[in-house]
Amino acid sequence: MRDVAIIGIGITKFGELWDKSFRQLIAEAGSKAIIDAGIEGKEIDAIYVGSMSAGRFIGQEHVGALVADSSGFAHLHIPAIRVESACASGGLALRQGYLSVASGMNDIVVVGGIEKMSDVGGTAATETLATAADQEWEAFFGATFPGIYAMIATKHMHDYGTTREQLAQVAVKNHANGALNPNAQFRREISLDTVIKAPPVAQPLGLLDCSPVSDGAASLILCPAEKAKKYTDKPVKIIGSGQASDTLALHARDSICTFNSTVYAARMAYKQAKKTPKDIDVAEVHDCFTIAEIIAIEDLGFVEKGEGGKAIDNNITTLDGSLPVNTSGGLKAKGHPVGATGVAQVVEIVTQLRGEAEKRQVKDATIGLAHNVGGCGASCIVHILEAM
Amino acid sequence: MRDVAIIGIGITKFGELWDKSFRQLIAEAGSKAIIDAGIEGKEIDAIYVGSMSAGRFIGQEHVGALVADSSGFAHLHIPAIRVESACASGGLALRQGYLSVASGMNDIVVVGGIEKMSDVGGTAATETLATAADQEWEAFFGATFPGIYAMIATKHMHDYGTTREQLAQVAVKNHANGALNPNAQFRREISLDTVIKAPPVAQPLGLLDCSPVSDGAASLILCPAEKAKKYTDKPVKIIGSGQASDTLALHARDSICTFNSTVYAARMAYKQAKKTPKDIDVAEVHDCFTIAEIIAIEDLGFVEKGEGGKAIDNNITTLDGSLPVNTSGGLKAKGHPVGATGVAQVVEIVTQLRGEAEKRQVKDATIGLAHNVGGCGASCIVHILEAM
Repeated sequence: MRDVAIIGIGITKFGELWDKSFRQLIAEAGSKAIIDAGIEGKEIDAIYVGSMSAGRFIGQEHVGALVADSSGFAHLHIPAIRVESACASGGLALRQGYLSVASGMNDIVVVGGIEKMSDVGGTAATETLATAADQEWEAFFGATFPGIYAMIATKHMHDYGTTREQLAQVAVKNHANGALNPNAQFRREISLDTVIKAPPVAQPLGLLDCSPVSDGAASLILCPAEKAKKYTDKPVKIIGSGQASDTLALHARDSICTFNSTVYAARMAYKQAKKTPKDIDVAEVHDCFTIAEIIAIEDLGFVEKGEGGKAIDNNITTLDGSLPVNTSGGLKAKGHPVGATGVAQVVEIVTQLRGEAEKRQVKDATIGLAHNVGGCGASCIVHILEAM
Repeated sequence: MRDVAIIGIGITKFGELWDKSFRQLIAEAGSKAIIDAGIEGKEIDAIYVGSMSAGRFIGQEHVGALVADSSGFAHLHIPAIRVESACASGGLALRQGYLSVASGMNDIVVVGGIEKMSDVGGTAATETLATAADQEWEAFFGATFPGIYAMIATKHMHDYGTTREQLAQVAVKNHANGALNPNAQFRREISLDTVIKAPPVAQPLGLLDCSPVSDGAASLILCPAEKAKKYTDKPVKIIGSGQASDTLALHARDSICTFNSTVYAARMAYKQAKKTPKDIDVAEVHDCFTIAEIIAIEDLGFVEKGEGGKAIDNNITTLDGSLPVNTSGGLKAKGHPVGATGVAQVVEIVTQLRGEAEKRQVKDATIGLAHNVGGCGASCIVHILEAM
């Protein structure tokens, strides 16, 4: 297995993008990354794309071929692989693309993530997102992710004394970061009071504890690390990649306050990277709901189990804290086009490690981590990156 | 890149399986393959599964995690990867699993393919299948795959003199083979007259020119070739793997009678295998419609372009012909649970190369080919296998 570097990044604005189609979004993100890397189409050996549910959101499967075609590459007959792991589809696309370069099979690989969620009406977005839950044990009975994460939050509050204010403070922090990110869906700061007084969605979670329905796409260009300097002065190496699965339904787990898929995926990534949680300078974690960020920083080993809420109180994860988390605004404020999220997280980490994050730049960031979760943790992908 | 062998195979019966769920089908195929290989769950490094549209057919995405969980492996936290390339999803799952073993990343990999199509009513199956076509240029305007392939057939008849009888004879041959396959959906022979007089679907294609809507699953176990004899006396080596893409919409191609994705994928697979079409003893090709088999045997190089119809007349592709094609019954008679098909094709080739195909056994078969197409050729995956 050889070392792999990221030599190009591209991302669209996230939001309710009524004037842009799925095809336009992936072509925009992809072409930005291709221009950033300075590669040509004919150099591309394979395309890996993550999309959770284009079949339901826009009535289109065969997503790999669509992406190659929409990007203007049909005449090159490039192998195009669509992967799906619910909200972790983007991270999975990166991992599969990474493995294909690490193996020596491919040299130049384009990784994309995309979702176009706002074209459906009524409750269709929530119903489609619920297809990431267990259809027979959860979704059939009316469970949705806000409800499932609300149960997790309630249990975390009961077991560890996590407070409503700590949950809300995650949203406050991520909105403060999102206000500094020109591509974020929500670019405004919000107060603790606003979060707590927002309309309830599933107690204890209110509207501002939940990530939004979003459109958007993101893209990365990979190549063997030894060739990276040919393309860019600022390559970023993938030093660890981990993936794990868990029960699809929440009830089948020993604990609902620990996501074992995160624990195992992180263990795999840390081991490969020869790093510990203390080595991480900046992290993007999967804050689909505020409680999810608290559990993520515990399961990733940044703090002890049960201490996630206190870490928020102590400002550990703010932009000027000892371990800034979700500098992009996270899923909460940057937006959560589900298939794009895992790739967008890595775009943010690369931007930080290149020192190009402008007002949200973390000082001296050299090692970053991206953490992408499917559903309520039936799958997880973790990547660790280092500036070369 | 190291050599990879198939050491276990499993398949369910194909058909309208009202009494079996998606979960039961994949668990049945997977456990048959695991028992066949004599491996244990804890040896499995990764699971790759192909499914075209579980999100629409059964309201369930997050298919990788579901498959790991349904198979009883949730506690092992195995990385599970769902891939999608329309009707080529199964072939793509094999290719990705193959690459992960060839790279040295994984040792034991389970590959699965599945679709549960008969749980939807009305026109929902046809509409979901049409999501493999170009939604904006084809499906939106009412195009379905029978209609698209009917245009292809009409053009092939016009350009090359292919006859209605030659199309029908493909169905007759595949039904004769399917009658010998205990897992086939249709286990009865049909006459040329029956095919030609069947109700028209899209001229010139009638009901018996079209593969059916099916439920089913298939599975393979992969390991490094050097370790294969530890598990089985009859390992089969993957000696070539190719994949290519093309325009999603048919109108954007230079010719609609050649599938360039097949041409490029086959070229890649033949080159890696150091074989030519003449070396192939038995093949499973993607006969979603009778015209598709005729075009496939041309694009794979078994006969010259335009000679596919005559090959049927000359009995080249029958069970006792010089190159038996679709000994399993093909998609036409074995059934076509779309995500399962690419894996099921390889189950048949392995069965043939092991000499275990009983009444449909091809004599002295040592090299076989499997050809799996997405939609009307926007993607294609080709594998070449050899008995070890």
